[in-house]
Amino acid sequence: MKVAYQGERGAYSEIASIKYFGNNATLIPCKTLSDLFDMTDKVDYAIVPIENSIEGSVNEANDLLLTTNLNVIGEIYVRIIHCLISYEENNIEDIKRVYSHPQALGQCRRFINSHGFETIPYYDTAGSVKMLASSNLKDAAAIASARAAEVYNMKIIKEGIEDDKNNYTRFIILGRDDTKPTNNDKSMIIFATKHIPGTLYNVLGEFAARNINLTMIVSRPIKGKPWEYNFYIDFEGHKDEERIKECLENIKNKVTFFKFLGSYPKFTL
Amino acid sequence: MKVAYQGERGAYSEIASIKYFGNNATLIPCKTLSDLFDMTDKVDYAIVPIENSIEGSVNEANDLLLTTNLNVIGEIYVRIIHCLISYEENNIEDIKRVYSHPQALGQCRRFINSHGFETIPYYDTAGSVKMLASSNLKDAAAIASARAAEVYNMKIIKEGIEDDKNNYTRFIILGRDDTKPTNNDKSMIIFATKHIPGTLYNVLGEFAARNINLTMIVSRPIKGKPWEYNFYIDFEGHKDEERIKECLENIKNKVTFFKFLGSYPKFTL
Repeated sequence: MKVAYQGERGAYSEIASIKYFGNNATLIPCKTLSDLFDMTDKVDYAIVPIENSIEGSVNEANDLLLTTNLNVIGEIYVRIIHCLISYEENNIEDIKRVYSHPQALGQCRRFINSHGFETIPYYDTAGSVKMLASSNLKDAAAIASARAAEVYNMKIIKEGIEDDKNNYTRFIILGRDDTKPTNNDKSMIIFATKHIPGTLYNVLGEFAARNINLTMIVSRPIKGKPWEYNFYIDFEGHKDEERIKECLENIKNKVTFFKFLGSYPKFTL
Repeated sequence: MKVAYQGERGAYSEIASIKYFGNNATLIPCKTLSDLFDMTDKVDYAIVPIENSIEGSVNEANDLLLTTNLNVIGEIYVRIIHCLISYEENNIEDIKRVYSHPQALGQCRRFINSHGFETIPYYDTAGSVKMLASSNLKDAAAIASARAAEVYNMKIIKEGIEDDKNNYTRFIILGRDDTKPTNNDKSMIIFATKHIPGTLYNVLGEFAARNINLTMIVSRPIKGKPWEYNFYIDFEGHKDEERIKECLENIKNKVTFFKFLGSYPKFTL
């Protein structure tokens, strides 16, 4: 089984892949989200970060979902635990500067400020550990997952340095399976409406009329049409349930664009 | 009159400030959006990028609006025209690598690939021109506004290198003025609802019932409450109009959190 994810080895996406698929899958790292979506023809599954409890929706991932041929077949949540990582011989007092993705640097601001570290933005969290491991920047550390320290044989100086412990990323799994209802499912759609008053309201009315709970609603600009938007909605229910079928049929008649992305079992701890 | 904006001199935010306030305002650059909001006590106005026609909403700006004491008193749109900028003696065939903000690099991908430039992410567009100007990186260029080239005395090698010409950023102006209705206004609110089916639908119903056009709807995670959201809505109308007053009063009774950000004249070219 081949599973593609975005990021270097040791990325939080790799952790999500192992948590979902166990240790038997062949994991294929892709440099960017766009590379990941290009790779989907050659793999069985792709794992995609879709939203974070602090940063919100992952815009590029949402935009790429617009054109994929795969279905959403599952989801998984990963707690983001950032670690300060450096060379074996270093202790915290040896560190002067810290490399990581700007978002990770931002999420550890209190810790970084309390130690007076200089911050240096890097394109990727795990990538910053990989870079340190192959350099000799004596007074530098990186911020990434504990797994990244393990993969690149570096030392965890301190674990759990993020300011807000309510830091989770939700990943969706893309594949070709046709999932069956489990009685505890979610589904995902994308749609656009005419830009006249009440159109979004009318679409949401189809959910409200059937007491269907929405778990996410995101708006994204439509490329080439400034100030027009696609809406992404996640809701509770499975496409094979009668009330969901009806709801989606009615919505299709009210929108100018519609894409059904899939029904999948809700993640439970 | 003191106006604060985010970015280095030559930033697109500086262009927006000049376009809105003319040449008589004292412009104060702030390093980050968070610095900009910290500065609002000491200035008359602050100009804030709120959404881009390609990238979507500016998440950090939305999050910072949650706690500001200022009102939205205006808006302005700026067309984003990226330039390839380098030293006086360079022509396009001398360039090997290009520095800029990752978003600007992404927006010029076709142009960059057609010339085979290496890309180097930098924290800011205008900042990358400033850095080049004070360095001697012979084969390097930056991507930023024409104004940045002017400010730092550098050469525009090529103007308008962005892939998609429909590239506009919408800025809002924060201030203390109480704006009067002009008959062509917009208003902005933030609210949160209980997480039960139909609550967002019920709020939108207040707009639909009065035929009020929504021009933006954005959801942002609530800090410390994973998977709960604040909604940001821009709509047509002014708070002093009777139907808008009624609409907002009814919404207040349906939500768990409400903040009115301001009414302001719609931008017209």
